[in-house]
Amino acid sequence: MARKGNLVVGQSGGPTAVINASLYGVIREARRHAAIGGLYGMAHGILGMLNEELIDLRSQPAEVIEGLPHTPSAALGSCRKKLKDADYQRILQVLQAHDIRYFLYIGGNDSADTAHHVGRVADAAGYELYCISVPKTVDNDLGYTDHCPGYGSVARFNAIATMDAGRDTDAIGVVDNVKIIETMGRNTGWITASTALAKQSGEDAPHLIYLPERPLAVDRFLADVKRVFDRLGHCVVTVCEGLKDEKGETLVASERAVDTDSFGHKQLGGVADYLCAQIAENLKIKARFDKPGTIQRMSSSLASPVDLAEAQLVGEVAVRTAVQGTTGQMVTLVRESNSPYRCTTGLADVEAVANAERPVPDEFINAEANFVTPAYLEYARPLIGGPLPSYVRFEPRLVPKKL
Amino acid sequence: MARKGNLVVGQSGGPTAVINASLYGVIREARRHAAIGGLYGMAHGILGMLNEELIDLRSQPAEVIEGLPHTPSAALGSCRKKLKDADYQRILQVLQAHDIRYFLYIGGNDSADTAHHVGRVADAAGYELYCISVPKTVDNDLGYTDHCPGYGSVARFNAIATMDAGRDTDAIGVVDNVKIIETMGRNTGWITASTALAKQSGEDAPHLIYLPERPLAVDRFLADVKRVFDRLGHCVVTVCEGLKDEKGETLVASERAVDTDSFGHKQLGGVADYLCAQIAENLKIKARFDKPGTIQRMSSSLASPVDLAEAQLVGEVAVRTAVQGTTGQMVTLVRESNSPYRCTTGLADVEAVANAERPVPDEFINAEANFVTPAYLEYARPLIGGPLPSYVRFEPRLVPKKL
Repeated sequence: MARKGNLVVGQSGGPTAVINASLYGVIREARRHAAIGGLYGMAHGILGMLNEELIDLRSQPAEVIEGLPHTPSAALGSCRKKLKDADYQRILQVLQAHDIRYFLYIGGNDSADTAHHVGRVADAAGYELYCISVPKTVDNDLGYTDHCPGYGSVARFNAIATMDAGRDTDAIGVVDNVKIIETMGRNTGWITASTALAKQSGEDAPHLIYLPERPLAVDRFLADVKRVFDRLGHCVVTVCEGLKDEKGETLVASERAVDTDSFGHKQLGGVADYLCAQIAENLKIKARFDKPGTIQRMSSSLASPVDLAEAQLVGEVAVRTAVQGTTGQMVTLVRESNSPYRCTTGLADVEAVANAERPVPDEFINAEANFVTPAYLEYARPLIGGPLPSYVRFEPRLVPKKL
Repeated sequence: MARKGNLVVGQSGGPTAVINASLYGVIREARRHAAIGGLYGMAHGILGMLNEELIDLRSQPAEVIEGLPHTPSAALGSCRKKLKDADYQRILQVLQAHDIRYFLYIGGNDSADTAHHVGRVADAAGYELYCISVPKTVDNDLGYTDHCPGYGSVARFNAIATMDAGRDTDAIGVVDNVKIIETMGRNTGWITASTALAKQSGEDAPHLIYLPERPLAVDRFLADVKRVFDRLGHCVVTVCEGLKDEKGETLVASERAVDTDSFGHKQLGGVADYLCAQIAENLKIKARFDKPGTIQRMSSSLASPVDLAEAQLVGEVAVRTAVQGTTGQMVTLVRESNSPYRCTTGLADVEAVANAERPVPDEFINAEANFVTPAYLEYARPLIGGPLPSYVRFEPRLVPKKL
């Protein structure tokens, strides 16, 4: 028999196009279980617990609940907050005061860390609590899971954006020679890697891809760009916001671009601007950059249907797992088959997940450290959920010259 | 009887999501006229004429032609080139050598200028040529036309991107307080204005919009941001790349951000970065920026169906106009009714269009110069072609506090 009690769910970290689909999965599944009484949402993640600001999810209009999967961002509000010991005691009080027995937290590794500590504090106090972490991060950097909900959609957006921006440079490359697209991804290159999906034939963009898993030597970068430019007359490059040089320093255009959040993570950005300046100065060719920023992680319009379905699934499974009496686990995605693509779920210890970061593995990065391998493409292709748009090109059939 | 001869079509300036739909319209219509023999495309706009590089459009596979409307960018290649007298003589030679009697040029005001001069040179030489300009520019800054093909789609993209990025800041604004989205638009604020369509209820993003039609006083800007931030805890601002200060100087983060093309137009960008620094320094709150760059003008996936249809229409009408023996005109869009929206075409003298720039009119900008008016929204709404995505919000129904 499942423990009777109330359930609270929160969303944390950077919002995504599908994090509300996970919330929808939690709500939908929770309603099926008689053990679950009140169904509460934390306003702005763990801050909602600290401030005792809980949104009553059972009293929400049906159209709001049904609209969640196609609404980007975190409908409950999000936060980034590293908690202190006293905070955990306060959370325990709120849990007790509201007879909350199920604690579900949707987020990345910092959120897994929070869930882990909430579970420990409850345990130490002898308070019966089932604490389950629901994976979410566009960065795709969580361990123990094949991939993370949010990644398929940001990958789909960036693949399409790179196709589009690539076609632009293709056409106007005689004027704007080099285009750099700066993607998110912090210290891992998963998001940047996804731009490779844009390349459908030989000379399509992107021509070069740089991941933070490899230090960037600016000289080598410039030589790469020049080689592509000399061959094609233009060049499209994608880079991760978190690129570092050979000394391990983040490449930024200005000091201000580096800021630090309460987890000690630097807010990154500015590398594309820096590299444009290097190209202009050293190669004397014109370079511009696109920086879709938060737009890339928020695009419900271009979300991956596979990602959407999986985001909902991990929410549902988290509830079932908690109600079955499991605690201290994160729901994972387990790829059963790649062709046809089939994915199921598993569980991983939330403490192991917390604070671990999974970089893009060596077998996904080419030897020159300026592109991904076919193995990466095989990994990523099913996640973006269906074919990319199909664009045409004229055949090079020229009218014979007369002059 | 229409003059028998060959037709050449070119694409010029910044590519768009729908410029290939205009090309499709030209090809489709040209095939219907017995007077038109060869159907040629200039490789990279007027450079194709200078280099006698003409793509044979009649010999292209049917699937390439049919794929044009949904392929972004300029399929023929584009350019930005201000021509000299000798260049026009060379173009005349190429026209004569290939018995080209119809010259269609798809582009903005620089392209209208080129078309105007090609027509004059042919006229002076007594060479019978029908020269028609086909409007295209995401900037929407051409005179004599209600709006420009390309604008509806960039407006739709930016409205959705602002909704999405706005929801992001809504959720995580407790950490990332201010978001600035930098749009294209050069010296006119039409594109930036379109972000206003994202606001569907009172506190939705964007909260502030700055157009280059009004000089930006940084003090006033900071006061505006602070006022919104104090009320909501976050703020989403959209700005045009071409914003200028009260001395008429472009606001840029670094000198490099300013570059000049062969028409003397500055390549703009960097204002969002500059304003983020001002906010951080003066208000001590965290600001980040998104700069979708060329992605915004290339998004076939989010193109406006109204824009697509009109882009094709102006291509078709250009051919009919030329075949009827008209020259030296640009096809215009004429709004017949706003509700229901109905649009037809007209003609404007190509010399009048050339080099003229239509700013956002006073009645579309609010008195505080930090937002658009309802009249603008009425103008723009039909152009984005159908409703924007519908997102939900939770009702603020809180669980009663117990502590």
